[in-house]
Amino acid sequence: MKLSELAQQTGATLENADDDLEITGAAGLAEAVAGQVTFLSNPRYTPQVKETRASAIYLAGNAPIDRTDIAVLRAKDPYLAYTKALRIFHPEPKAEPFIHPSAVIDPTAQIAPDAYIGACAVIGANCVIESQVKIYPHVTVYDNVRIGAQSVLHSGVALRANAEVGKRVIIHNNAVIGSDGFGFAKAEDKSWLKIPQTGRVVIEDDVEIGAGTTIDCASVGETRIKRGVKIDNLVQIGHSCTIDEDALICAQVGLAGSSSIGKRVILAGQVGIAGHLHVGDDVVLTAKSATSHDIPPGKIISGIPGFDNKEWLRSVAAFRRLGEMARTIRTLEKRLSEQDRSSKETE
Amino acid sequence: MKLSELAQQTGATLENADDDLEITGAAGLAEAVAGQVTFLSNPRYTPQVKETRASAIYLAGNAPIDRTDIAVLRAKDPYLAYTKALRIFHPEPKAEPFIHPSAVIDPTAQIAPDAYIGACAVIGANCVIESQVKIYPHVTVYDNVRIGAQSVLHSGVALRANAEVGKRVIIHNNAVIGSDGFGFAKAEDKSWLKIPQTGRVVIEDDVEIGAGTTIDCASVGETRIKRGVKIDNLVQIGHSCTIDEDALICAQVGLAGSSSIGKRVILAGQVGIAGHLHVGDDVVLTAKSATSHDIPPGKIISGIPGFDNKEWLRSVAAFRRLGEMARTIRTLEKRLSEQDRSSKETE
Amino acid sequence: MKLSELAQQTGATLENADDDLEITGAAGLAEAVAGQVTFLSNPRYTPQVKETRASAIYLAGNAPIDRTDIAVLRAKDPYLAYTKALRIFHPEPKAEPFIHPSAVIDPTAQIAPDAYIGACAVIGANCVIESQVKIYPHVTVYDNVRIGAQSVLHSGVALRANAEVGKRVIIHNNAVIGSDGFGFAKAEDKSWLKIPQTGRVVIEDDVEIGAGTTIDCASVGETRIKRGVKIDNLVQIGHSCTIDEDALICAQVGLAGSSSIGKRVILAGQVGIAGHLHVGDDVVLTAKSATSHDIPPGKIISGIPGFDNKEWLRSVAAFRRLGEMARTIRTLEKRLSEQDRSSKETE
Repeated sequence: MKLSELAQQTGATLENADDDLEITGAAGLAEAVAGQVTFLSNPRYTPQVKETRASAIYLAGNAPIDRTDIAVLRAKDPYLAYTKALRIFHPEPKAEPFIHPSAVIDPTAQIAPDAYIGACAVIGANCVIESQVKIYPHVTVYDNVRIGAQSVLHSGVALRANAEVGKRVIIHNNAVIGSDGFGFAKAEDKSWLKIPQTGRVVIEDDVEIGAGTTIDCASVGETRIKRGVKIDNLVQIGHSCTIDEDALICAQVGLAGSSSIGKRVILAGQVGIAGHLHVGDDVVLTAKSATSHDIPPGKIISGIPGFDNKEWLRSVAAFRRLGEMARTIRTLEKRLSEQDRSSKETE
Repeated sequence: MKLSELAQQTGATLENADDDLEITGAAGLAEAVAGQVTFLSNPRYTPQVKETRASAIYLAGNAPIDRTDIAVLRAKDPYLAYTKALRIFHPEPKAEPFIHPSAVIDPTAQIAPDAYIGACAVIGANCVIESQVKIYPHVTVYDNVRIGAQSVLHSGVALRANAEVGKRVIIHNNAVIGSDGFGFAKAEDKSWLKIPQTGRVVIEDDVEIGAGTTIDCASVGETRIKRGVKIDNLVQIGHSCTIDEDALICAQVGLAGSSSIGKRVILAGQVGIAGHLHVGDDVVLTAKSATSHDIPPGKIISGIPGFDNKEWLRSVAAFRRLGEMARTIRTLEKRLSEQDRSSKETE
Repeated sequence: MKLSELAQQTGATLENADDDLEITGAAGLAEAVAGQVTFLSNPRYTPQVKETRASAIYLAGNAPIDRTDIAVLRAKDPYLAYTKALRIFHPEPKAEPFIHPSAVIDPTAQIAPDAYIGACAVIGANCVIESQVKIYPHVTVYDNVRIGAQSVLHSGVALRANAEVGKRVIIHNNAVIGSDGFGFAKAEDKSWLKIPQTGRVVIEDDVEIGAGTTIDCASVGETRIKRGVKIDNLVQIGHSCTIDEDALICAQVGLAGSSSIGKRVILAGQVGIAGHLHVGDDVVLTAKSATSHDIPPGKIISGIPGFDNKEWLRSVAAFRRLGEMARTIRTLEKRLSEQDRSSKETE
């Protein structure tokens, strides 16, 4: 690809460069070779700019450069421009139309003529598989499921009955969408009586769901994962939760039932969210933290139970010396008692 | 269903109501429409009783009601009665006898004539599949496994060799029953030598197991999940554990090897239980807590490591101000030293 | 097996024993019956030696024994010798050469003539399956994967494209090797743009991977699990991580991206490791702890965030009394203020 075309497609402007330079790939500062484009985002890596073998580099508007043998592409966000370049050089392979003879497809299912259905995939009654969907081997699609155009389901994924999956959704291997929520009433003999889980899961467009992640159907109504949400591996999302647009849910996070997560929220690894609460837009919970209360928009929360991240940093710093603090307190008590005694003696 | 019949089947008594009123479904206070039954359990929702469109309502014996246009069903536990109603209106669909031609069944396996075996399911040698069992696609049943009547195995479940599953058990997608326990001895060269895991898993009647949950076989003997235990998604149960009747194990809980969990214990989300210990009957561990010691019956435990929940609540309240506490202690030390100095000067 | 032969094969020396005694199995002190060998490793179980029905026992060089009716095998590490005996009596069953007719194997794949491929397994293009590999039903092997001799893949495992698996590797059910790493750049409209994950996973020889565990491919280059690493169930390993030889990763541990774990490190259950950091050789992180910083070799770390285990033990001991500590501090402040006042009055 010509440099000028790359610049245009990645939202960058060329500086001091040959428009017709041929760029063949994208790589990090240390890995890039001649013919490739690289980037500098974190100023900490500036020294590596001197040594990179890349032929072109994405730089922020104000970043200085003292090499003349490397083409400069100015971008507002060099990392974003570089990601766009990576996506140009590593496009998602388009699924060729194909149905493996071992796939088991219910006769009532509607499969777009350009969909891909891998070996041993099982598609239930009344399903709708839209254009250019790619279904890998051993996927099980229960009845009445709709899968939007260009979505990809990796091997071993299960879509339970009535699930709805939007367009350009990626679901990684062995994820489970729509298994029963965990709901029981205590019977007279203290055994647990299962509450029927009659709802479903809706996954909107452009969602990505990690390997082994489980998303329960609603007890009634919908569990909904909104447009652009990204969910990592081994995440648990309980029944009737809603995850709002562009939230980022890292690995091994767990959400109990009926909670709602705001737009652009980031839940870092192994976070826990209790049931029936709301996490406001743009909140960040740091790794391993938890909340059992609503969180207002924009807060950064840490700890178990979670509170303001800055206060938490002070608390955990003090916690390291807590044994010492306890001893100091005992010493203070003793000194004070001695003072009391000596002052009484003085009287 | 006639109101009188519903009352009888759900253990409620009619008050001020037309026996022949036809009830067609059950739903929450806000969602219910005419013809449906609803319930009030938590007094917090009492205001909604005025506005519900339901035709009937389960109320506790003493709960007041000032509407005459709604049939009242008095129940000791309105939520339980409502759950029973839900179960009447949403019965588990009975599995029709069926074996998909793509299923791979060892000739030595015994399959009840009214069992359901889905597409591509694989059943090993000497297995016994009892009456009305429903096995979804892509289930793998290793050799010598027994599955009790009316149990349901969702797609992707693996039952490793010699596992035994009771009656009316539900196992959700991609759960793994009987994989090897995590046991190794340290060899002379500090590498790990695998200890053969020769035991098995027994799942008793009326157990439910969540999606993606893993239950390891015993190193020797049995890992046993007793009658009525309910296990949520992505739970890890180590080798040789025993979970006693009616325990509730929430999502992402982990149990190391050889621990035993008492009757009716509740382990909330993401709890961790170390190995070789006993958690007494009716214990509750709150979310994200952990224990490496035995816990006597009836305790509520929180924290890492866990201790009495009430004390923990006091400790975490103080923890939020720990930075401030540390400063206060330093100030106290300084003031005390100044007093000491001034009192010496006085002398 | 003759006792003398058993001793030789398990690195023990016979004491006071009949070389030709026939040993038919191995079991714990309490479970062993006549004809079996047992062991004493933890002195706490010494009283059970008097009562065991075993015919032979592994003992440390210096351990006393006052029974003459039991053959003694002296071993430097009785538990290791016993494990070796267990492995002799419970050998891994050798996979018989077999390809199930329902398996779907790409014509370009090379399958060793003595490999075992179970029902419905799917093997992609250009794969190489070496000698005596055992692939259970419903395994999905994507394109360009190599699996080394004598490795075992249990049902439902997914090996994504370009993965490389060494010799004698065991991968338990539904584990996922090589799913996309979790990498996104923030676009201008605050949505997340997927960063292509173009790397792969390499699993070296003698690794064991637990059920439901997920190991992401590198964004570029390799995620590498080195020789002899043992990974338990439901572990998450992020893109581009390296786990060095003989590390032990317990259940539900999570590693964010680009971290490296040293040789013989032990990460106990539910530990969390942040991204882009190094955990030194022989480090232990205790259960549920976490680190977001490098850890030097040999340390034992606990807590969230983690610090020295001994200090942590003091801190958590004090934490239990933190509510009381807060009250004591308030009391001290009050007493000190009263002293101040009374000393002023004295003046």
